[in-house]
Amino acid sequence: MTSSPTSQPPLQSPASQSSPQHLWQTCAARRERLRRSVRARGLDALLVSRAPNRYYLSGFELHDPQPNESAGCLVIAADGRDKLATDARYQDAAARLWPVEDICIYGADAPATIAALLRGSGCRIGIEAKGVSLDFARALGRAGRGIWLEAADGLVENLRRIKDSDEIAALERSFALNHQLMRWVEGELHPGRSEVDLAWAIERFFRENGAQELAFASIVAVGPNAALPHAIPGASRIAENCPVLIDVGCRMDDYCSDQTRTFWVGDRPTPEFSRTLALVREAQEAALHALRPGLPLAEAYRLARDVFEKAGVAAAFTHGLGHGVGLETHEAPSLSPRAQGILEAGMTVTVEPGLYYPQWGGVRWEYTVLIEENGARIL
Amino acid sequence: MTSSPTSQPPLQSPASQSSPQHLWQTCAARRERLRRSVRARGLDALLVSRAPNRYYLSGFELHDPQPNESAGCLVIAADGRDKLATDARYQDAAARLWPVEDICIYGADAPATIAALLRGSGCRIGIEAKGVSLDFARALGRAGRGIWLEAADGLVENLRRIKDSDEIAALERSFALNHQLMRWVEGELHPGRSEVDLAWAIERFFRENGAQELAFASIVAVGPNAALPHAIPGASRIAENCPVLIDVGCRMDDYCSDQTRTFWVGDRPTPEFSRTLALVREAQEAALHALRPGLPLAEAYRLARDVFEKAGVAAAFTHGLGHGVGLETHEAPSLSPRAQGILEAGMTVTVEPGLYYPQWGGVRWEYTVLIEENGARIL
Repeated sequence: MTSSPTSQPPLQSPASQSSPQHLWQTCAARRERLRRSVRARGLDALLVSRAPNRYYLSGFELHDPQPNESAGCLVIAADGRDKLATDARYQDAAARLWPVEDICIYGADAPATIAALLRGSGCRIGIEAKGVSLDFARALGRAGRGIWLEAADGLVENLRRIKDSDEIAALERSFALNHQLMRWVEGELHPGRSEVDLAWAIERFFRENGAQELAFASIVAVGPNAALPHAIPGASRIAENCPVLIDVGCRMDDYCSDQTRTFWVGDRPTPEFSRTLALVREAQEAALHALRPGLPLAEAYRLARDVFEKAGVAAAFTHGLGHGVGLETHEAPSLSPRAQGILEAGMTVTVEPGLYYPQWGGVRWEYTVLIEENGARIL
Repeated sequence: MTSSPTSQPPLQSPASQSSPQHLWQTCAARRERLRRSVRARGLDALLVSRAPNRYYLSGFELHDPQPNESAGCLVIAADGRDKLATDARYQDAAARLWPVEDICIYGADAPATIAALLRGSGCRIGIEAKGVSLDFARALGRAGRGIWLEAADGLVENLRRIKDSDEIAALERSFALNHQLMRWVEGELHPGRSEVDLAWAIERFFRENGAQELAFASIVAVGPNAALPHAIPGASRIAENCPVLIDVGCRMDDYCSDQTRTFWVGDRPTPEFSRTLALVREAQEAALHALRPGLPLAEAYRLARDVFEKAGVAAAFTHGLGHGVGLETHEAPSLSPRAQGILEAGMTVTVEPGLYYPQWGGVRWEYTVLIEENGARIL
């Protein structure tokens, strides 16, 4: 083996495909923006624990190794001396991204080590209450005598709502592949084919055309299963003349895509299906035409729902209209009836009305749009 | 579409491949065993939030939909009236597994709904502090006036340590496929092939031979990358005469497998590699021969480490000897130097000594064994 990890780092993730200098500058600029929020909240530091937030600010490990295991955390300090804390397994990976003198390696007692690190930044510390377990927070509190921990969720997510040009370019590539998938999959809807078989063919298509992974577990739902907004592909098979709902996304260059189509297999769609599809597309159009900077998030939902209410079918619309998409499939902002705030340029949101009928299935149609100065552009 | 979800449930997971009656009885028996621990702790109920624990006790949703989203939770009550709480997306899936009168559907304010449910079981409630976020625990505490919440981690994990015959059969199938993979992969180690390419071939092999998914992200590490215990496959390519470390697992019939081999590609292994491989296998043998019910967990680690200490290489052994394997790749018990407790019949543990040298790579070799009455059997 001739390449050494320092002279030729493995392409562990697309973050490291851009030059190390560019990655460092991008992340450093994000940390400076975050630092302004940290200071504005009167905090001495923010402990960043959520994996996508950590990655956004450092390029270090997009994923935690297991749901109950952390790959590490960042300390974003008001005084500008940021730290990366991780365990020995990640020491080399961290050193490829972060100044060695600001890397802290913890052992079995991570909370005590992290508490000591935090104490070096000051005494008023924000933590991501949605991103740490109760157990970790308690251990940190016990170890961190002399520091005051307070919940400070959403500071990084708030920055992440507005995508920069690199992020938009990555999203465009991810969605381009997703569109390619949707064109291809229409030819794969053969009667007799099972949901699981088609789901695996979809995963192969994504992976063999450049995706790193699926953005989320694919939904391939045949017939009445299409009525389950969270259907898991099973042994049900496509029949002649039945609906098939496909809701899939890939991760490409780190960024997620998310699209849904509902197809009719066969040449005799039922009147219920055709009417439902027309209503769903009408509701989607109503929202799409109105999306622009300044529109209240809840109003976007309301515009789609109004179409369903006028048609007397609103009870079959059982979820929100959409959500942000980026490093996570589901991120801020939410287009729900209770959402606060307004659309801003640079946001990427799904627009995915659906109507569900347990007797025969349902229809959902999803595009994701980028909010631009004068409207919304479908990605 | 002719099949209806009630008459012919989709095979959402292998749990539903066994008869619904068998699944219900298995889960009910597990809940009864857990109930004894709940009562012994003086609790009125335990709120089960961790996904593998929820699944073990109910067959409901092995995975949460996203790292920051729950598919639901169980209330295991001392009085025997257990509940399943979830959101509307999962209502149908829940109804296929659980009596409808004991299903609680929550909306946007899940903590308030769950708190009310808990209040119906009594006032002293255990929660999985490692399985809930600080934010959720705080919201539950605010909503749950009149109930006392206390951390009660590990009760379900403690039951899960000892595998029953169905679980052992599933593990045997999962490991059989993993052995098949390791025999196949030796023929795939061609100079010039990249880590990512081989990792994808491995994933395809698993999936196209019956696995549901990978148990964890495959490690394929060439040359010096083999020194990273948590290497992520990258663009590094296999060279003539270099080590390749492969640490992979699949999930089959819900159960994880986990095995590591370190291969030498080419016919001229270096003396360092050959000596390191021999030492790793010797350490593994030393532990394997001693594993039996009653052996202290820390002693298993010590037996392997002693081999390295005698050879003067113990500093290069940077992690524990092993961990339990089941519904999770990493579960109890841990074979670490600090582990408390002893081996018991029915446990499944990995035995995976390794030695790492950043200059050239490293060697890890991993078997998983089932502890039986008189020793240990390699799965």
